[in-house]
Amino acid sequence: MPFCIHCGLPTLPLIPAGDSRVRQVCESCGHIHYENPKIICGALLVWQDKVLLCRRAIEPRYGLWTLPAGFMENGETIAEGAARESQEEAEAVSELEQLYCIYNIPDIGQVYMLYRGMLVEGNFGVGEESLECGLFSEADIPWESLAFESIRRTLKHFFADRQTGHFGLHVETLRHPVKPT
Amino acid sequence: MPFCIHCGLPTLPLIPAGDSRVRQVCESCGHIHYENPKIICGALLVWQDKVLLCRRAIEPRYGLWTLPAGFMENGETIAEGAARESQEEAEAVSELEQLYCIYNIPDIGQVYMLYRGMLVEGNFGVGEESLECGLFSEADIPWESLAFESIRRTLKHFFADRQTGHFGLHVETLRHPVKPT
Repeated sequence: MPFCIHCGLPTLPLIPAGDSRVRQVCESCGHIHYENPKIICGALLVWQDKVLLCRRAIEPRYGLWTLPAGFMENGETIAEGAARESQEEAEAVSELEQLYCIYNIPDIGQVYMLYRGMLVEGNFGVGEESLECGLFSEADIPWESLAFESIRRTLKHFFADRQTGHFGLHVETLRHPVKPT
Repeated sequence: MPFCIHCGLPTLPLIPAGDSRVRQVCESCGHIHYENPKIICGALLVWQDKVLLCRRAIEPRYGLWTLPAGFMENGETIAEGAARESQEEAEAVSELEQLYCIYNIPDIGQVYMLYRGMLVEGNFGVGEESLECGLFSEADIPWESLAFESIRRTLKHFFADRQTGHFGLHVETLRHPVKPT
């Protein structure tokens, strides 16, 4: 990040006064460029005994299966972002029930926040960022072709919790994720 | 955000291909500048029947009382950020127990994520960003001098939940917050 977003002149890596971390600071106007973790919001949507999955039409992990999820946007709540991603990636109308899984991924500055909910009336399509979408029972989940560890864990939690009927919040940290290809 | 962080040349507000939102896009190199919500991580720390509060030595809300909290940094988990803020603002060693309150504040692109935990051995000091720190029982909380609605709600939840002994996760949305002065 070598240039200032405010004035276009070069920045330098410095520790600002009162701070303890190196930031890119503008030599000219003094603007400090902070970089902070991003939230990935998404949803595990259920219809009867099946879960809605999408096969990715974009990198990273093109061609692999995922839950609908993506970067949270300014101006929306986590739940609104999860519903928007479900609409965009699978043309799914969702009825969200609870914030279900949170994954810290500190190595890449991401926090996954995944809701659990219902796929309204079982209807879905195929969004622009998906090659195909489908409803999968536990026995049919493509475990070897999932895009992300966060998605694998969320599905594992769901099928385990469904046995007990108790769906608590899961908060976990994923270390050293495989880099996107 | 009128200049490109990658090449220093001007950006324009455009909707990139495959996107549905206006982003600042570099006219020269094409770099897309995304802006996403930021996470504020913090902690409600308890010693005996009292809660640790800090009086802010920084803007916004200089002079008002808050729980230790601040922007989550890249490379840390939410809990690590909450512990770090507790150390920085109140020289507090914390033993975190649960992710307790989450507040969407879509109008300003923030998500508060507050842990509940113990103040180890009841020890604390006064960090650089605080004017003073202190332990407050429910009757002594300075309700009229709290810095943020998120903090007020977290304290209300805590004292109510303490009556029942059940500390569930609270996920709420705050609309139209008062702008920082």
